[in-house]
Amino acid sequence: MTYKVKAAKHEPVAERESALPSRDQNFDVETDVAVVGGGCAGLSSALFNAWNGEDVILLEKAPELGGTTIKAAFIYWVPNNGPLRDSGGVDSEEDFLKYAARISRPEKYDPNSPTLGQSRLEYDLYKAIYESGWPAVERLHEKGGLRYEHAPNWVDYWASLDEDKVPAGRALVPEGINEDQTDGGKLAIESMSKAAAEAGVDIRTGHRVQRLILDDDNAVVGLVATTVDGQELRVGARKAVVFGSGGFTHDKDLRDNFLAVPAYGGCAARTNEGDFVRIGAAAGAQLRNMQYAWRTPINLHKAVEKDPDMQGTFAVAGDSMICVNYKGERPLNEKLPYNEFVQRMYDWDPLNCDFPNRVLIQVWDQHSQDNSAIDYFGNSIVPDGVDDSHVIKGDTLAELARNVGERLERFRGETGDLTLAPDFLEKLEVSVARWNEMAADEVDKDLGRGSREVELTVFAGPLSDADKETKNPVMHAISDQGPYYASLLIGGTLDTKGGPRINTYAQVVDDRDEPITGLYGVGNCVASASARAYWAGGGTLGPMIAFAYRASQAIAEQPARRPGHSAAAA
Amino acid sequence: MTYKVKAAKHEPVAERESALPSRDQNFDVETDVAVVGGGCAGLSSALFNAWNGEDVILLEKAPELGGTTIKAAFIYWVPNNGPLRDSGGVDSEEDFLKYAARISRPEKYDPNSPTLGQSRLEYDLYKAIYESGWPAVERLHEKGGLRYEHAPNWVDYWASLDEDKVPAGRALVPEGINEDQTDGGKLAIESMSKAAAEAGVDIRTGHRVQRLILDDDNAVVGLVATTVDGQELRVGARKAVVFGSGGFTHDKDLRDNFLAVPAYGGCAARTNEGDFVRIGAAAGAQLRNMQYAWRTPINLHKAVEKDPDMQGTFAVAGDSMICVNYKGERPLNEKLPYNEFVQRMYDWDPLNCDFPNRVLIQVWDQHSQDNSAIDYFGNSIVPDGVDDSHVIKGDTLAELARNVGERLERFRGETGDLTLAPDFLEKLEVSVARWNEMAADEVDKDLGRGSREVELTVFAGPLSDADKETKNPVMHAISDQGPYYASLLIGGTLDTKGGPRINTYAQVVDDRDEPITGLYGVGNCVASASARAYWAGGGTLGPMIAFAYRASQAIAEQPARRPGHSAAAA
Repeated sequence: MTYKVKAAKHEPVAERESALPSRDQNFDVETDVAVVGGGCAGLSSALFNAWNGEDVILLEKAPELGGTTIKAAFIYWVPNNGPLRDSGGVDSEEDFLKYAARISRPEKYDPNSPTLGQSRLEYDLYKAIYESGWPAVERLHEKGGLRYEHAPNWVDYWASLDEDKVPAGRALVPEGINEDQTDGGKLAIESMSKAAAEAGVDIRTGHRVQRLILDDDNAVVGLVATTVDGQELRVGARKAVVFGSGGFTHDKDLRDNFLAVPAYGGCAARTNEGDFVRIGAAAGAQLRNMQYAWRTPINLHKAVEKDPDMQGTFAVAGDSMICVNYKGERPLNEKLPYNEFVQRMYDWDPLNCDFPNRVLIQVWDQHSQDNSAIDYFGNSIVPDGVDDSHVIKGDTLAELARNVGERLERFRGETGDLTLAPDFLEKLEVSVARWNEMAADEVDKDLGRGSREVELTVFAGPLSDADKETKNPVMHAISDQGPYYASLLIGGTLDTKGGPRINTYAQVVDDRDEPITGLYGVGNCVASASARAYWAGGGTLGPMIAFAYRASQAIAEQPARRPGHSAAAA
Repeated sequence: MTYKVKAAKHEPVAERESALPSRDQNFDVETDVAVVGGGCAGLSSALFNAWNGEDVILLEKAPELGGTTIKAAFIYWVPNNGPLRDSGGVDSEEDFLKYAARISRPEKYDPNSPTLGQSRLEYDLYKAIYESGWPAVERLHEKGGLRYEHAPNWVDYWASLDEDKVPAGRALVPEGINEDQTDGGKLAIESMSKAAAEAGVDIRTGHRVQRLILDDDNAVVGLVATTVDGQELRVGARKAVVFGSGGFTHDKDLRDNFLAVPAYGGCAARTNEGDFVRIGAAAGAQLRNMQYAWRTPINLHKAVEKDPDMQGTFAVAGDSMICVNYKGERPLNEKLPYNEFVQRMYDWDPLNCDFPNRVLIQVWDQHSQDNSAIDYFGNSIVPDGVDDSHVIKGDTLAELARNVGERLERFRGETGDLTLAPDFLEKLEVSVARWNEMAADEVDKDLGRGSREVELTVFAGPLSDADKETKNPVMHAISDQGPYYASLLIGGTLDTKGGPRINTYAQVVDDRDEPITGLYGVGNCVASASARAYWAGGGTLGPMIAFAYRASQAIAEQPARRPGHSAAAA
């Protein structure tokens, strides 16, 4: 058993092969539970099953464990959690369900409906998160797999809605996280990997799962993986195969053919290429929720370079800062939560057949450069000494505009024929003047920037102490003196949200909603109940842990099959 | 062989069963080519193959032939067609490809790229339409299957773009179509059905195809269908199974989980329930382009009633007419092409977590009632004597608003908790006053209504002769005297555009882009190359005929297999 933990790099992985299932029940190795993926979903699945007494093999495509998780802050959003209750908070199931339903599928939300206007399955999946999120996290904590701290100041992204009765308090972070909360993912992967080794999990990195092995009843009895040097490993699973792998952020063909709004990639692990979309579908799984993603603006420059360390631009920092489109117009509130920011990047112009905001130009002055620079969370504004090759500069707005235009030419392969409008500079000057006029009153009459708590806390970015004391800390006039700075933002994903559909025990279901015997899925590789919503920071990881736990409960109740035989379902 | 032709009704069809393929090669009947679906895609496929000398069985789920086609105007959009050239028009391949690429995936369009910024497959699919559209249509015409007339006045929906070098002239209609061009679909189905019978096609209505039959090499060798009374029919296909069935307009679960913008149903045949999405995927096909649809506003009232004769509200008629949302605000240009109208219905409000335009209230006065009423093309404004149960009335705007509010309450199951804002009436009055102010100058300064040719021709709706002579025929002040009228519009689909991916010969491909031997797909059941675009009126039917023709060419070159044996691919 060899593995090591470090920041994920884009190292070679085995080539993709056909996803069509195998029916040859010859195995190189046998286990009770085979887990696919070495991020939070896979590791927590491995732990819960191993702690239940199962033999577990975990396969990770990359040379190291960590997946997308290792890059994350690792907030985990857990309704009705212990520390919340201990601090006097009340998070009733009814309130939680209403919040989840209201923002996941707002077009169907009806508080008077027995399922709040959602499908029965969606409603039951929300309930499963409420029921199992905290018990799962508690078990991880108590067994030493992942110890938590409360993070009571993380405000839900839709805290401003009436339906959010617990605007803060559902967030946890790994124990011992640093002050900036940047090393949570690394801590969590280290802690869970260590616990997995101690629990006897057989961890095999550098193994890409290619297809499932089915018996004559279409039950999953194993899988086939390959290594980068072409070796094949056939794993028999007496009880279950659990996919805890990633979404399809880095598969352009899948992105272009499923996502509701075009995306140019994202900050998921480079190995998130939609493997389970193909493998699951080929084994008869329904695909669902394929149009939605955990969206975030990303830096065009870094996305084109396929920088494996790229983060989402989660907070568009700066107060003396605005974003404009290729016309020089300011189209959105720059402090929107990242998921909503990207939605507005795909506003449609039905007269010109155009997504005018698909590339946004973040423009700031020396004041923001001096006060809002950090070198993490994908911030465009970086301190001196940090790689700033993505930053475009100009002593005047005119020079900045010229340099932005030149930079855009480099990225034609990504952005099509997008170029600055002939009157871009003139319109940019109008947009800056309008901003400065509104900044004098500290009220963004056009787009409401700074009107909600979440914008002033989670999405403000660093500010000077003086600015923090103003009426609207995220509004500050842009200087009439250079230098000026700019960075190019495009729409991307933390990861996608669609894949094989699961039931409330994370069993993957077929086209008749019947579980495919022996097949489970957890995390970004399967259809998320969250649909269009980004519930809160940690809205990925908390539910993921809940479903990993529920899957292990179902697996524990299932008798082992004898591989090599046509095993009947439990 | 029994079939009859009449307007599609929502008559009972066989229940859906599992889509998992069968491997039992026992057949009740054998043929060369089995065609699924009795609309344009299926009938043209049956004809082309029968004329090539193949034995053909055609299976239709409904009790009658016709599918969505029978409800259509049956414009068919054919680049570089004979009548266009005969009348001196020039439609070069390069121009056609640029127009197709520019609007299908505008976010990737690059005129300097060898594939115009599109994927190689998308580019090749556009080329296939250009190459084969006209030869296919000519063959249908010459063999008497479907005789055409030129419709030189149909303007492309994006005629205003520089990339459209042939703004009109690509449209054909069935010979003998009536003056209002409302009976094209009926004529086409009658003509093609008659020709199919004459060509010896074995037509079996009331047969729902449930799954494919595969051999040991995963080649398609037949299919299983059932009838409404539970009889099973196993059809062996010596050469091919061709799906020419519909999309998933009437499957709420698929709509909710794939479409980029929420849709409430649509005007496709009621039998379009996504059968080939399930059947194809279960046989190993890739699904692609699943987020896009041929979108159209539909009438909320008729959609809820599941009226099988419902049409899309293709032209939102009236000049003294505006659309407002639940706040009373006018959010869009009412004369947008239907596909773009619906896109704007899903503008996102990122501060309130809301699609504020998801139900629009079309409001008109007696002037529009008198001059813009027709009882076809899904018009909200209908003449006296026609069922107007969808129309809401009021002697004053206040009374109208009250009645709109009451009507909305009825539809809560569909629209969630959408109710009129408390100040709806006040805002409606502001919107009407603003409209009237702009109508005095005949310039829609807010949203550009009437600024493009397509808005004044295809999407104007009926107008009085006097209005037609004005500077902006689609702008007219709304009277300060009642009665007033309203109708509720929601976003729907003519049909969806996603499904199994095909190559340029309409062969369905697996997850490695390799053709699945013996499996073809044509029409709305497979992934359309058009992505987000509605190229023009007839953008569905013209390309459909081109691919039916290309599939028959590939099938003709393939040797017949002996069913009952593990047939090798050609």
